[in-house]
This record gives sequence, structure tokens and C-alpha cells, in this order.
Amino acid sequence: MLVNECVINKNDIFVELERKLDTCFKNKELLKVALTHSSYANGKKNIKFNERLEFLGDSVLQISISEYLFLNYSKKTEGELTKRRALIVCENSLYEIAKKWDLGKHIRMSKGEELTGGRERVSILADCVEAIIAAIYIDAGFEKAKEFVLTNFKETIDKAIKNKIVLDYKTKLQEVMQKNGDVDIQYDLIKYEGPPHRRKFYTQVSVNSKVLGNGTGYSKKESEQSAAKKALKGLEKDNG
Amino acid sequence: MLVNECVINKNDIFVELERKLDTCFKNKELLKVALTHSSYANGKKNIKFNERLEFLGDSVLQISISEYLFLNYSKKTEGELTKRRALIVCENSLYEIAKKWDLGKHIRMSKGEELTGGRERVSILADCVEAIIAAIYIDAGFEKAKEFVLTNFKETIDKAIKNKIVLDYKTKLQEVMQKNGDVDIQYDLIKYEGPPHRRKFYTQVSVNSKVLGNGTGYSKKESEQSAAKKALKGLEKDNG
Repeated sequence: MLVNECVINKNDIFVELERKLDTCFKNKELLKVALTHSSYANGKKNIKFNERLEFLGDSVLQISISEYLFLNYSKKTEGELTKRRALIVCENSLYEIAKKWDLGKHIRMSKGEELTGGRERVSILADCVEAIIAAIYIDAGFEKAKEFVLTNFKETIDKAIKNKIVLDYKTKLQEVMQKNGDVDIQYDLIKYEGPPHRRKFYTQVSVNSKVLGNGTGYSKKESEQSAAKKALKGLEKDNG
Repeated sequence: MLVNECVINKNDIFVELERKLDTCFKNKELLKVALTHSSYANGKKNIKFNERLEFLGDSVLQISISEYLFLNYSKKTEGELTKRRALIVCENSLYEIAKKWDLGKHIRMSKGEELTGGRERVSILADCVEAIIAAIYIDAGFEKAKEFVLTNFKETIDKAIKNKIVLDYKTKLQEVMQKNGDVDIQYDLIKYEGPPHRRKFYTQVSVNSKVLGNGTGYSKKESEQSAAKKALKGLEKDNG
């Protein structure tokens, strides 16, 4: 069903999101559950949240991508397909898709979760995308869900095939930190060791003078990426 | 299509297996590829083997089981569903299904692979079951493949739900070793340590006086299971 044909109550809280998803839910309740984080259900009775949908959505995503790769890359070995699939089906690409939809603002979560940055949290956003995929699967069937996945993951698939998925942790760290206003992110080369052709670099990243991570690598750039990755991991952990 | 309605050439090499699978392939070539181990293709031109199908089949299996659990156990949390699914979708249950079909004798593999026990190898049999699931998916569609999975995994699902999947490594080790005739499997308690309420047992398993594994556990039984598990791992490794 095209969104334009969708039975819409102008006050429907889902209108905006359904337009972004280019999907019209027959059963709006499913979308509601997909958009409900577990924190919202805490201490309330009979509130369904999206974890079970996420469990199902992960499988729908896997088969959609697996079949696409299997059918379109008949010369690639199982090992190559598995590697590509892992690049496509990962928290980071789910997060990127969530950002495009501005999904964070549509999620129901507890005040506490919201105050600690829940609307921007990578894991919450990624899980919510999987839950939406499952909701479409239940609401409209396998073929529709597959079509939805392939439309929304098209860019990621193309990049994975062309080996263009570069995990840029420095950019991501900047994005995350700047959510709370301007910040000063500094990468300091602490030391290096080894002969020139096999030199190992040690870099430390600080945000507003607070050290957030240390990284190593066989180039300065690699060690900075590694430090940024560690910092992001630390932040994810702190924010639960 | 029922097997009885299946267009059968009496000399068709697949008749027997199709009966066991209760499936009639429109495209027999798919079944043939699913039954071809990579070793068979070594050094030959244009022989397709089952690794790519296995890649796809794994996803078909995952979604079939995930959906079944999701729909039938609406009170179980995502964590419980994930735990159950891991018990159902694993090499061991695939292997059990392969044994029921006597799948080993239908697989095309190299002489070398066959001579080193390939027809009984857990990984080869398990992978082949996944490839067959993918072949049905491509040949007959998603619904048929799902039906096939649920029919064949029914017993495993029931056991997983009732928490009756006991991984009995001692029985499995005996089965594997007895393939080559009578053997003498012995479990020796080497030592134990710690106070009675928290006593740790160390057991060694030997087959025909050759030590194959060491295990520990907080009961004699547990340490024997652990030793048998180690022995099985070692055998899998030796056989490639």
C-alpha cells in the first residue's frame, strides 16, 4: 500500500514516520510496539516494548541481505558473501538508517533514558530499526519486508560490494560529542616504536582535555581511528 | 507437491532422498548442488558445490525458527527466545536431522574426504542440511521452506522449549568411535580438589588406551562430559 493511499487520520502520531518509511501499517499497534523502548515499560502494566520484535527483525534482515547477495553475486564464494553480509548487517549501518529517518524523536522511552542521551544512543536506534523491520514483516508479509530492507539498505549494500565501507570512528566520535555543544577533540601522538617500515604509533584522544581513549596502529591515522573507537566504546558503556 | 505426484524417473538418483525429505524438487540441479561437498569440485571444472547454498540456508533456518518462537511463545522475553533459538539452530541438531535421513551416503565428495570419514563428519552433514533448506527455498519459495524446517525441527524445538536438550557428549563420542568397529572407551578420575560442597573433578578419557581428552567439572558426571566434549573437538580438528 502506498503511503498516499494510506488511511490517515491527520492527527495520527505515526503519519510523519510512515511517510519517511514509505510504509503504511494496517496494524498501527505493531509500529507503536516497535517504537517503544524497554525503559518506557518499566513500572507500567501491559506495555509492550520492542525487544521481541528486534529478535525477529534481525532474522528478517539477515535473510533479505543473504538472498540479495546470493542471487546477485553468483561468482562470490561463501566466505566473501559472509564478509559482505557482516559489513551490511551491523549496528553501525542500522544506526545510519535510523539517523536518516530521524528515528530518535519517535521512540517512546523513559525520562531517565532520554536525559542520558537515549534518543541518540546507537544501540537503541539500531534495535529500533530491526523492530520496525519485524513489524512490517508481520503486518505486510515476507516480500514486503524484504523490499523494505533492500530499499533502505541499498546504499550500504553498494558500499559493501565496492569495499567502500570505511569505519570512520573519528567522524563518529565528533558527531556524538557535538550533540552537547561545541567540544575540543584532540589527538596526541604519545610515542612510536619499531623500525620505519614497521613503526607502531600510540595515540591518545581527549575531549575538552579529558582523556577518553588510547589507540595503536601502524600509521598515525590508524592509531587515531583506534583511539576514537576506544573512546566510543567507553561512552557506550558509560551510557549503559 | 507431494512426493507421490512427483515426476519420477525410476532411475532417478534422487528418488530415495526426495522421499525421505518428503519434497519433490522441480529443479533437480539444485538438490544436486546441495549434495555436493567442496572436495568433490577440487580440480574439476564447472562443478558447483554447496557452500553458497549453505550461506543462504542458514538465514532461512534462522527466520523460520525465530518466527515460530516469536508467534508461539508470546510470554517469553527476547533473551529467552535467543537462548532457545541457539539450542535449536546449531550444528548438533542439524547433524541429528542429517542422520535421520542417512544423508551421508547421498553426498558427493572426494575419495580422500570419504576415506577420512567425511560421510559421518558432523560439519559436512550439518552444512549439507542447511544447503538443502536453501535449495527448497529457491525451488519452492519461502512458505514451503519454512514448512520444511518446522516439520523437520519439530522434535528439536519441542525439546528446546521443554529444556530437554542435554548435550550428551559421552554418547556422541561412543557413536563416533564405534563407526570403525568395537572400541574400549574409558573415563578415569585423575584427581579431585576442594571442599565436599565445592569439589572439582578432573577426568581423562581414553579410547583403546590412547588419551583423547581431559575435562573438569563440579561432579564426576560433569567432568566426564567435559572430557568427552574435548575428545570430540580434537577428533573434528584432526579430521579437518
